Amino acid sequence: MIYITRRERFCAAHKLSHPEWDATKNLEVFGPCSNENWHGHNFVLYVTVKGQVNPETGFVVNLKDLSPLIKEKVINKLDHKNINLDVEFMKGKMASTEVLAIEIWKQLSAPIKAIGVELHCIKIQETENNFVEYFGE
Amino acid sequence: MIYITRRERFCAAHKLSHPEWDATKNLEVFGPCSNENWHGHNFVLYVTVKGQVNPETGFVVNLKDLSPLIKEKVINKLDHKNINLDVEFMKGKMASTEVLAIEIWKQLSAPIKAIGVELHCIKIQETENNFVEYFGE
Amino acid sequence: MIYITRRERFCAAHKLSHPEWDATKNLEVFGPCSNENWHGHNFVLYVTVKGQVNPETGFVVNLKDLSPLIKEKVINKLDHKNINLDVEFMKGKMASTEVLAIEIWKQLSAPIKAIGVELHCIKIQETENNFVEYFGE
Amino acid sequence: MIYITRRERFCAAHKLSHPEWDATKNLEVFGPCSNENWHGHNFVLYVTVKGQVNPETGFVVNLKDLSPLIKEKVINKLDHKNINLDVEFMKGKMASTEVLAIEIWKQLSAPIKAIGVELHCIKIQETENNFVEYFGE
Amino acid sequence: MIYITRRERFCAAHKLSHPEWDATKNLEVFGPCSNENWHGHNFVLYVTVKGQVNPETGFVVNLKDLSPLIKEKVINKLDHKNINLDVEFMKGKMASTEVLAIEIWKQLSAPIKAIGVELHCIKIQETENNFVEYFGE
Amino acid sequence: MIYITRRERFCAAHKLSHPEWDATKNLEVFGPCSNENWHGHNFVLYVTVKGQVNPETGFVVNLKDLSPLIKEKVINKLDHKNINLDVEFMKGKMASTEVLAIEIWKQLSAPIKAIGVELHCIKIQETENNFVEYFGE
Repeated sequence: MIYITRRERFCAAHKLSHPEWDATKNLEVFGPCSNENWHGHNFVLYVTVKGQVNPETGFVVNLKDLSPLIKEKVINKLDHKNINLDVEFMKGKMASTEVLAIEIWKQLSAPIKAIGVELHCIKIQETENNFVEYFGE
Repeated sequence: MIYITRRERFCAAHKLSHPEWDATKNLEVFGPCSNENWHGHNFVLYVTVKGQVNPETGFVVNLKDLSPLIKEKVINKLDHKNINLDVEFMKGKMASTEVLAIEIWKQLSAPIKAIGVELHCIKIQETENNFVEYFGE
Repeated sequence: MIYITRRERFCAAHKLSHPEWDATKNLEVFGPCSNENWHGHNFVLYVTVKGQVNPETGFVVNLKDLSPLIKEKVINKLDHKNINLDVEFMKGKMASTEVLAIEIWKQLSAPIKAIGVELHCIKIQETENNFVEYFGE
Repeated sequence: MIYITRRERFCAAHKLSHPEWDATKNLEVFGPCSNENWHGHNFVLYVTVKGQVNPETGFVVNLKDLSPLIKEKVINKLDHKNINLDVEFMKGKMASTEVLAIEIWKQLSAPIKAIGVELHCIKIQETENNFVEYFGE
Repeated sequence: MIYITRRERFCAAHKLSHPEWDATKNLEVFGPCSNENWHGHNFVLYVTVKGQVNPETGFVVNLKDLSPLIKEKVINKLDHKNINLDVEFMKGKMASTEVLAIEIWKQLSAPIKAIGVELHCIKIQETENNFVEYFGE
Repeated sequence: MIYITRRERFCAAHKLSHPEWDATKNLEVFGPCSNENWHGHNFVLYVTVKGQVNPETGFVVNLKDLSPLIKEKVINKLDHKNINLDVEFMKGKMASTEVLAIEIWKQLSAPIKAIGVELHCIKIQETENNFVEYFGE
């Protein structure tokens, strides 16, 4: 079993606020992340898949297959977008990095299985000081 | 003459669009940066000042003086904000990294002179693949 | 289960030397790290916690709670200090990165449980070429 | 149990091509990596070992023992070399990062056991956008 | 006057050897860089241009114009190539980073002038420990 | 004229305190950097030299000449040392990064001239948030 990780990036806007809370409570819980006019990040996404090495190619998976799939299912939907407003799979959900990691897992798990490997980890780095990891359960 | 550089960071949303152009022209010129619902970045700001070394302290400038000044005049106004909507000194201006560098220079030049050194360069990194530098003229 | 990691930094002095060994043996075992006048590092600390996502906030843990706790229990005690001389929880212990990781685990494990999540990993990077990880057992 | 990781680097040339396939098929599968005149990378190798902390030294393993061993068994054979042509332990194998990780594991597993710790992971970063990890099984 | 820098990357093989020197002399002068079977690097290219800010766009130059031009004139000719064998503009020249920087300047200077800005600096990073800069004279 | 930069690193302890000031004044001016028991950093040194390209080698300077010279004159005297106590060329001087840059310039300027190039810049990075540059005047 070998693990291979592909790094991709997307620049997006978001805000953290609970729709049923007022501005004061949102500010108390989410601090400046609740700014009503949005803020944004250079998010870095690490997709780790695992599988056996194909003896003919030496590859677990051809990155020529994996990278376009990540772009199609995830990056194109998030890059230069507003996570709260523009992203179908985040509609009605909190735009936290944790929730984003779980929802990206749901977008990628089946398509990655379809190209012959298994999704192992979704890691998202939001700033140089924090990142989240999700392993599917 | 010694040059000293302080790095600070701010996470902000912005968009690039000319108010007198329609969506088609804005998309043509600015590409995905014109997304009406905003996108954002982890901007990195490098402020370089120059001066003589003070023989008593060994410092050109005490970072205990320089860093709070940058925070007060620039970072607090930009971090977790929308550059187009929330930032007084960017009102009515294009929210490009170039213009932002010039306007940050204007915010910092006099206050930095007031603490005894001279502003040399404002550098802003927008993504890992591009940055701008402005030397005041 | 989601894992979230907070990065913090501290600049500290230390030396590696066994109190019952002479300078020759300490030099033989620890090399230049045994320099009697100390040396130092920009240590980077990564604290990883795990837990369920709170559906109201989208957070595993609010970094507004986690970060000050790490600062209070660990960073304020280590930053701009001498690990051998100034740090209560390292008294009488070897000031290696391994031992430091274990002792930081002991400082953080209970307080992190008290804010509702579980400490998963303490990682300390000493130089760009080496780091240690401790998972509590 | 503590995990310690040593980072080493090597600059090498390689190409990906199946000896029984023609140029068209190799290009189709491996893309520009099949260029017959080679290309190359600054590979970064992370060797993670695990063990108990020695109470006398505070070390899991003395990096003065681990680092020369990695240099002798791996780095000296790969640095400024052609992976396909110059490296004994890669002869007749696909020069992919996955296969390289597995073969480096085979070179290091026993010697690392001989200095009292256990090899845990071989990680190789090929570019800033992809890396592989192998845990020995 | 504002300076803007675009970062691009290419993975290439090369070797350093003087065609009229024997292997012993080449090894003496160039060390392991003279390995006859090549070695390679992840080269990082920084192209800095300078100009006035266009008041309509806020840009010195639209990166949508600059980036494809760098790709067409330089990156596509170097990426996944052998600098000594595959690159027309390096034919008959030493494949050092210094010479490469000068030759890339020659490829880009006129095309960059044609899109309305002036080439200021070509910087090439060969490894994390060395880089060269060329300002055109 | 080509500029080439070599990066080297040293891990050292230091403190900032004026010998004629009491602890209160030193704390007021230097903050935690005045801790009497020292602190330390992973300092990163960038040495930039300039010169003409030698047409036979393609080099401005052979790094096989430059790097050992930097190690002998600077790194070996600073690495795993106490800058205030152990370093001859810093005796009686403030151990600030600014002063260190100027003194390293003095150590390297003549020896670098002796190998045929001119020292252009000494840059020292003390933490990820600050660095100084000195150009010799």
